[in-house]
Amino acid sequence: MQACFILFDDYTLLDFVGAYDPLTRLRSRGHLPDFSWTTAAVTPTVRDGFGLPVTVDWVRPDLGAFDLIFIPGGYGTRSLREDHDFIAWLKTAAPVPLKTSVCTGSLLLGAAGFLRGLRATTHFNEYALLAPYCGEVLRERIVDEGSVVTAGAVAASLDLGLHLCERLAGPSARQDIQQSMHYPAPN
Amino acid sequence: MQACFILFDDYTLLDFVGAYDPLTRLRSRGHLPDFSWTTAAVTPTVRDGFGLPVTVDWVRPDLGAFDLIFIPGGYGTRSLREDHDFIAWLKTAAPVPLKTSVCTGSLLLGAAGFLRGLRATTHFNEYALLAPYCGEVLRERIVDEGSVVTAGAVAASLDLGLHLCERLAGPSARQDIQQSMHYPAPN
Repeated sequence: MQACFILFDDYTLLDFVGAYDPLTRLRSRGHLPDFSWTTAAVTPTVRDGFGLPVTVDWVRPDLGAFDLIFIPGGYGTRSLREDHDFIAWLKTAAPVPLKTSVCTGSLLLGAAGFLRGLRATTHFNEYALLAPYCGEVLRERIVDEGSVVTAGAVAASLDLGLHLCERLAGPSARQDIQQSMHYPAPN
Repeated sequence: MQACFILFDDYTLLDFVGAYDPLTRLRSRGHLPDFSWTTAAVTPTVRDGFGLPVTVDWVRPDLGAFDLIFIPGGYGTRSLREDHDFIAWLKTAAPVPLKTSVCTGSLLLGAAGFLRGLRATTHFNEYALLAPYCGEVLRERIVDEGSVVTAGAVAASLDLGLHLCERLAGPSARQDIQQSMHYPAPN
């Protein structure tokens, strides 16, 4: 099972890392020993909205062979959703059985046509932008439509990551991973 | 006001990003327009425990002029706390008025002598490792001793970041930032 984290300039780093942390624990904590992941973008280095440079593993790979793709949100999504070159690349993910996003990452899934007829969510200020791309916008933290799972703003990334851990490895794996992350904060 | 995020190989990315996200919003959301930050390490590139390469802004700068330093945890802390060269560099932060850590980052603050006589916390499995470095180990999510603030494991980074936002810019800034992050998840 191989996941691909898709990054781009002006993304929100916590949107990515909040899901990356629990998902990578699927392997490190022994729940899915063959789980692997990679990062990809259209440039060798990407900077989040605050400028941190991350070097990705692959530049513009064909995405069709991955088992899971993940797309964070961020201000960069606003122009990328109309960037024909980027969206053409993203469309190579059409065969991927599990497509996921956090925050405005769903606008990119939508621009690639992956949300047609489905329910989805996005950042709580951007529901109107998402509406044209999907069947119905839900004001939920996580919307799981089977082959597509979208999540709300920023810190919903942790909840999405844990939700995917449970889907991929079961509730006891999720429980173990969220305890190891010390999440959520005890009341 | 300038903060320095100190990174190293085999750190936990979410320990860093969970605090980086709310702290950087101090500027982007207008609460502290002169808040700035930088990243530093002893090498130009660092990889977290799962291998993601991040390029830092500064290699081994003198840390004494920063207003805030932040140290994440991770398995790398276990050897670094006995790495005289790394700890000698960290000691240049002695004059910094606000020293902070998440998870086992407190072992590094401790090895540099910054926790002497103070109460502190760390990852919930590593209290025994922290004890020799500090006055008292507290099993808390955040321990604020004024000049030094330590936090517990991994996702406690988000709470530490928000705690620091409140210290630096007040409760209304904290409230605005945590709403913008959609954190914590509503019950």
